[in-house]
Amino acid sequence: MTSDVTIDTGQEAVGHIRRTSTDLLRRIEDRLNSLLAAERDVWAGVHPRAVVPINALSELITSGGKRIRPAFCVTGYLAAGGDPDDPGIVAAGAALEMLHLSALVHDDVLDDSSQRRGLPTVHTKHAALHDSRGWRGEPRRYGEGVAILVGDLALVYSDELMAEAPRSVVPEWNRLRSEVMIGQYLDVHAAAEFSAAPHSSRLIARIKSGRYTIHRPLVVGANVAGRNELAPAFEEYGEAVGEAFQLRDDLLDAFGDSTDTGKPTGLDFTQHKMTLLLGWAMQRDERIHSLITEPGHTPDEVRRRLVDTGVPADVERHIAGLVERGCKAIADAPIDQVWRSELADMAMRVAYRKA
Amino acid sequence: MTSDVTIDTGQEAVGHIRRTSTDLLRRIEDRLNSLLAAERDVWAGVHPRAVVPINALSELITSGGKRIRPAFCVTGYLAAGGDPDDPGIVAAGAALEMLHLSALVHDDVLDDSSQRRGLPTVHTKHAALHDSRGWRGEPRRYGEGVAILVGDLALVYSDELMAEAPRSVVPEWNRLRSEVMIGQYLDVHAAAEFSAAPHSSRLIARIKSGRYTIHRPLVVGANVAGRNELAPAFEEYGEAVGEAFQLRDDLLDAFGDSTDTGKPTGLDFTQHKMTLLLGWAMQRDERIHSLITEPGHTPDEVRRRLVDTGVPADVERHIAGLVERGCKAIADAPIDQVWRSELADMAMRVAYRKA
Repeated sequence: MTSDVTIDTGQEAVGHIRRTSTDLLRRIEDRLNSLLAAERDVWAGVHPRAVVPINALSELITSGGKRIRPAFCVTGYLAAGGDPDDPGIVAAGAALEMLHLSALVHDDVLDDSSQRRGLPTVHTKHAALHDSRGWRGEPRRYGEGVAILVGDLALVYSDELMAEAPRSVVPEWNRLRSEVMIGQYLDVHAAAEFSAAPHSSRLIARIKSGRYTIHRPLVVGANVAGRNELAPAFEEYGEAVGEAFQLRDDLLDAFGDSTDTGKPTGLDFTQHKMTLLLGWAMQRDERIHSLITEPGHTPDEVRRRLVDTGVPADVERHIAGLVERGCKAIADAPIDQVWRSELADMAMRVAYRKA
Repeated sequence: MTSDVTIDTGQEAVGHIRRTSTDLLRRIEDRLNSLLAAERDVWAGVHPRAVVPINALSELITSGGKRIRPAFCVTGYLAAGGDPDDPGIVAAGAALEMLHLSALVHDDVLDDSSQRRGLPTVHTKHAALHDSRGWRGEPRRYGEGVAILVGDLALVYSDELMAEAPRSVVPEWNRLRSEVMIGQYLDVHAAAEFSAAPHSSRLIARIKSGRYTIHRPLVVGANVAGRNELAPAFEEYGEAVGEAFQLRDDLLDAFGDSTDTGKPTGLDFTQHKMTLLLGWAMQRDERIHSLITEPGHTPDEVRRRLVDTGVPADVERHIAGLVERGCKAIADAPIDQVWRSELADMAMRVAYRKA
C-alpha cells in the first residue's frame, strides 16, 4: 500500500487528503446505515415490533455526533498509506462508531442522563412510553431494560462490522473494548466514593476516554493498513491528545453551553463524577467537595468556586501543553508531512472544540 | 474430517462419544477460566479495583450452570465428524457460554432478580455494597450500572473467544446474537403489555430461547466442523427441542423447587412474563390475568387455578410431542447412529430436567 499524497504542494495536498478522508467518513456513515437497514429488513418480516431497537440506533446516528473515532481511525489508516478504496477501513471505522453508540446508550443509563444529541435518551424515551401507556411493571425498569438491550445490540453490530476488517486488528479491538468497560467501571466506582484522587482520576480518564477515543482508533487504522510499526508514535500522540480531549470534556460540562453540547451541563457535579478538573480543584479548596455533595447549592456556586481556585486556567495551560506533546510525538513518525500537519490540526480541533 | 466412532458396538460407542464430549466440555471450561485469568493478570497491574468486573464473571462460572449451549455445540461438532483436538471448537463452545453469562447478568437487571445459581445477582450484590459503604448516589443505579458493565464485558469476551473459531462461523454467530437481543426486547415488551397472545409468545420463545439454546449452538458446531449441510436437520431438531426446553422452563418457574433451580420460583407471575403456559391458561380462564396483575393474590392461588385449567397437563403432552418431533428431524440426517441416539437422549434430558 502506498500513499498517493506525493503529488502536490501544501494547500493542494491538504485539500486532497481532506477530500479522501471526507469521502471515507461518508462511506462509513453509509455502512452504518446500510447495516441497520439490512437488519430492519430481516426483522420487519419476523415481528412488527422487532425493529424498535434497530430504529433506536438509527435515530441516534441521524441526530448528530462528532464521529471523532472514525475520523482518527481513517486518519491513522491514510497516514499509514492505506488504500482509500479498501472496504476494510470502512468496516473498521463503522465498528468504532457503533461501539460508541453502545457505550452512549449504556452510559446514559449509568448516569441517568435525560438528553443526548438534543433528543431524549433511549431509557428516558421508553420509560415515558411505558408510563403513558399504563403498562405493567415499573416504567424506569422497562426504559432501562430497553436501553440495556439496544446498547447490547449495538455492541453486537459493532463486532459484526469489525469482522469485515483484516483479522490482524483483533487484538487491538479486544483491548480497546475491554478497556472501555473496565474503565467505565472504575469511573462509576470513583463517582460513588467521590474522594479526590487525581492520580486515579487521571488513570481512569486515560483508560476510558483517551485511549478509546484517539490512541486505539489511530492504531486500528494503521493496523488495517498493515503498518503496526506506527503504533508507538500513535500511542504517544493519542495519550496526550486523549487527555486534552477529556479535560476539554470536563471544562465543557462545567462551563459549556448545553445548546452547543446537546446535553445538560453540570452533570459531572450532580453525578459526583470525579473528573480531573474537580479532583485538582478539591485539592486546592476542600469546600468544593461539600458544595457538590451537600444539598442546597447551585451549579453556579460550584462554578464560581472552581474559577477562584485557578484550576480552570491551569487546565487550559495543561491542555495547550498536551497538544504540544502530541505534535512532538509524531514529529519523527514515518508518515508524510501532510499527515503530520493534519494530525496537529486534529489535536487542536479536539482540544478546543465547543461541543 | 471423519468420525472415529465406527469401531465398536452400542454401549462402547456411547461410552466413547460421551468421554470425548466430556473432555471437550472440560477444555471449554478451562478456556473460559484461562481467558479470565489472563485478563485478571493484565488488569491487576493497571488498577487494583479493575479486576472486580472480571471476578464477577469468574464467580458466576464457578457457581454452577448447566452448560447447555456448549454441550449442544460440541454435540453438533462431533456428530458432524469434527476433530476433537481442534482448538476452534473449544473457542466456539466457550464463546457461547460467555455470551450466556452476559445475557444472565443483563437479564437479572431487566427482571430485578435477586438470586442466580444460589448467589446474589451482580446488581443486587453491588447495590448492597454501595448501600453498606454509604457511597454517593443511589445504590440501585450503582448496582445496575456495575451489572450493565459486567454484562458488556462478557459480551466482549464472548466475541474475543469466537474470533478463535473458523471465520465461516461469523454469519451464524451474528444472527444468534442479534436474535437474543431483539428476542429479549420483544419479551420485555410483551411482559409490559401482558395481554394473552399465544402466537406472539410462541414466536418470542422460539427467537429468544429455542434458537439460542439449541438450534444455533448445534449449527455453530456443525459449521466449525465444516458441515453446513447439517444445518436444516439441526434447525428442525433445535426448534422442536428448544420449544420443549422453554416450556419446561415455564413449568419449573411455576411449579418447580427453588432449591433445585437456584433462583426464586414464581418470577414469571410477579414479572408478568407472558409465557406460553400463562398465555394458553389465560385463554381458557380469564380470571388468571387478574390473579396475576391485581394485588392480594398469592402465587399458590395462581398455581391452583393454572392446574384447574388443565393447561399444565397439556403442556406436558406438548413437550412429549416436541421431543418426538425433534428425534424424527434427525432420523435421516447424515450422521452416525450413535449421535442420533445421543441427540435423542439430550432432547429427553433438556425436556425433563429438574432445574
